[in-house]
Amino acid sequence: MINFEFYSPTKVIFGKGAEAQAGKEIKALGGHKVLVHFGGSHLKKSGVLDRIHASLADAGLEYVDLGGVVPNPRLGLVKEGIRLCKEEKVDFLLPVGGGSVIDSAKGIAYGLANDFPLEDLLLGKAATDKIAPLGCISTIAAAGSETSNSMVITIEDGMLKRAYNHDCARPKFAIMNPELTCTLPVYQTASGASDIMMHTMERYFTNTTDVDLIDRMGEGLLVAVREAAKTAVKEPDNYEARATLMWAGSLSHNGLTGTGRVGDFASHKIEHELGGMFDVAHGAGLCAVWGSWARYVYRENPARFAQFAVRVFDVAENFHDVEATALKGIEAWEDWCRSIGMPVNLRELGITPTDAQIEEMAEKCAAAGNGHVGFFKTLYKEDIMKIYEMAK
Amino acid sequence: MINFEFYSPTKVIFGKGAEAQAGKEIKALGGHKVLVHFGGSHLKKSGVLDRIHASLADAGLEYVDLGGVVPNPRLGLVKEGIRLCKEEKVDFLLPVGGGSVIDSAKGIAYGLANDFPLEDLLLGKAATDKIAPLGCISTIAAAGSETSNSMVITIEDGMLKRAYNHDCARPKFAIMNPELTCTLPVYQTASGASDIMMHTMERYFTNTTDVDLIDRMGEGLLVAVREAAKTAVKEPDNYEARATLMWAGSLSHNGLTGTGRVGDFASHKIEHELGGMFDVAHGAGLCAVWGSWARYVYRENPARFAQFAVRVFDVAENFHDVEATALKGIEAWEDWCRSIGMPVNLRELGITPTDAQIEEMAEKCAAAGNGHVGFFKTLYKEDIMKIYEMAK
Repeated sequence: MINFEFYSPTKVIFGKGAEAQAGKEIKALGGHKVLVHFGGSHLKKSGVLDRIHASLADAGLEYVDLGGVVPNPRLGLVKEGIRLCKEEKVDFLLPVGGGSVIDSAKGIAYGLANDFPLEDLLLGKAATDKIAPLGCISTIAAAGSETSNSMVITIEDGMLKRAYNHDCARPKFAIMNPELTCTLPVYQTASGASDIMMHTMERYFTNTTDVDLIDRMGEGLLVAVREAAKTAVKEPDNYEARATLMWAGSLSHNGLTGTGRVGDFASHKIEHELGGMFDVAHGAGLCAVWGSWARYVYRENPARFAQFAVRVFDVAENFHDVEATALKGIEAWEDWCRSIGMPVNLRELGITPTDAQIEEMAEKCAAAGNGHVGFFKTLYKEDIMKIYEMAK
Repeated sequence: MINFEFYSPTKVIFGKGAEAQAGKEIKALGGHKVLVHFGGSHLKKSGVLDRIHASLADAGLEYVDLGGVVPNPRLGLVKEGIRLCKEEKVDFLLPVGGGSVIDSAKGIAYGLANDFPLEDLLLGKAATDKIAPLGCISTIAAAGSETSNSMVITIEDGMLKRAYNHDCARPKFAIMNPELTCTLPVYQTASGASDIMMHTMERYFTNTTDVDLIDRMGEGLLVAVREAAKTAVKEPDNYEARATLMWAGSLSHNGLTGTGRVGDFASHKIEHELGGMFDVAHGAGLCAVWGSWARYVYRENPARFAQFAVRVFDVAENFHDVEATALKGIEAWEDWCRSIGMPVNLRELGITPTDAQIEEMAEKCAAAGNGHVGFFKTLYKEDIMKIYEMAK
């Protein structure tokens, strides 16, 4: 186990009807005027937005709405949000949505508290520990942004999907009502569940030794999500499956499953380029590349892949051939992806990148990591190109 | 899964040499003069106290020491601490020790921020959300007080061991260096490990349904602790076993393993009376009563006990007889206790309470819970007496 810091100060308010507490929480945190930030019009149609407005009004808070966040949220709308908040003297941000909406609000919150252009933060030319106060209402179980320190925004100029991570970006509160996720389309539900699996898997595949405690807790999370995802795609109204996915979504990305070890995160970075160039659903993109990443790297530490196979996917262990067990685990993951309607390669994802596009993505991916990505196995541009090729 | 709130804002700083960061953290939190609160003289002899003083001095902080905390910490020393802090104008509390020392400091911190006598807080006659700032250096893996919202203090008059729980009591930071626990005596190591197991087990034994996610994460923690404890009692210097116990100690009692369910906590309450009357080590006391509690209550929900047996203690499942599997799990727990030198009844704990003492403990225990304790099965005075009898 290596030295670590763990800091997850977000107050989680979880369960049926939890969104009614938004006003009271913001009031207690000293907010006066709230930006309610969201994506499409379904929040209006479903009446959720009305209930949130009522909660804010009941607490004596003013508010202004800004909708229109798209998946892989864009810097343009973030800048519009910053302008609007300054104009309207907004002092508290309340994103209502999934990771894209919460990340867009984090971008606005950074913009309100700092003077530099936000591009500088995303491109590594600036850093800050200042952010405007933000609490969120999560409506999608996926990215874990509701308790995480991360923000991912796409810069339209070059379609660069870039991240900035700082503990100041952990929301003050995260309201999670699993009922709000019951109306999600099956594809988005499955994509979200895959993202949840991957947040723990990115940390699970490590070469750090003596990490049994967090291995076992992470494996427990993965098995529970494995089953809940299958239930949720078949029975969208199953509250318990939705609740499992929602709480697991936070626990998988609040840092817990990475404590005491070096994580990998190459798959996320490889997928980020797909998301930037082809605008695919993040979780689906991860499913489409992970098997290829795994087959490219598993020989670095076959025992770890075998442990994953046996403990997470109940693969029968081949005691004579650790690599055979490891490969069965990768197949089991792909079977699981297919069972919930997720792609396991780029063709199934619906994209057919040209050789030039593959090279461009690999180039950008490596460059974003100062020439390489991943810790389980260090991957350079040539390696990343091979993984995209394998994933075709 | 039931609705819940989860709030664990403590910044964890974990690993070798972590205590050197105390000064910097307190400075960042605005402290000027620190009470260093601890137990015996071993901290001085080992040089740990010197290193902590140096860290505080390096950060430009003043400090005053108060040692002498005993297991089952006493209200008398808490009151002495309050007087000393007021006299010395202390504005930050730094307990260095295990749960007793941290709880003693929490008592002082409540006393500094409130005007009522501390007895009122412990006896349920007062409540507060105010507490002076407190960060801690944990030196024992056990109680989890370093991130928990709880405080347990013994009122000498009547030897009443009583608790007050509030989120304001969660320390600002928890510094955990597993190396500092390597010098703990075997008995204390084992007692601490048992307490860690029990904090998750008290939440695990629930009748709330659809709690698979936290069941599995809790089971992962229990299996890891089960093994690490056996290693730590055999090889006290094994850093990895010590690190597992230390991090598990926090995760087992920061609320995580209780999210979405009704916990039980009867065993803790039954043990608290033993601790109050006979001053036994808390974890050892828990070991001495849990088997009897389990045999008294398991028929309420034999399937849950069977799940515990199979998943936590690798008991071979008897598919034809769930109660037989359940009972094997209770035996497996007792075998584990004995394997690390813990008692499984009061005799092995070294105490032989009279009938009058048993009645007095049961009376106090029930009274502290307004007539009953436990949620897995509600236990009244008569039930509690029977459990003490069974545990003889």
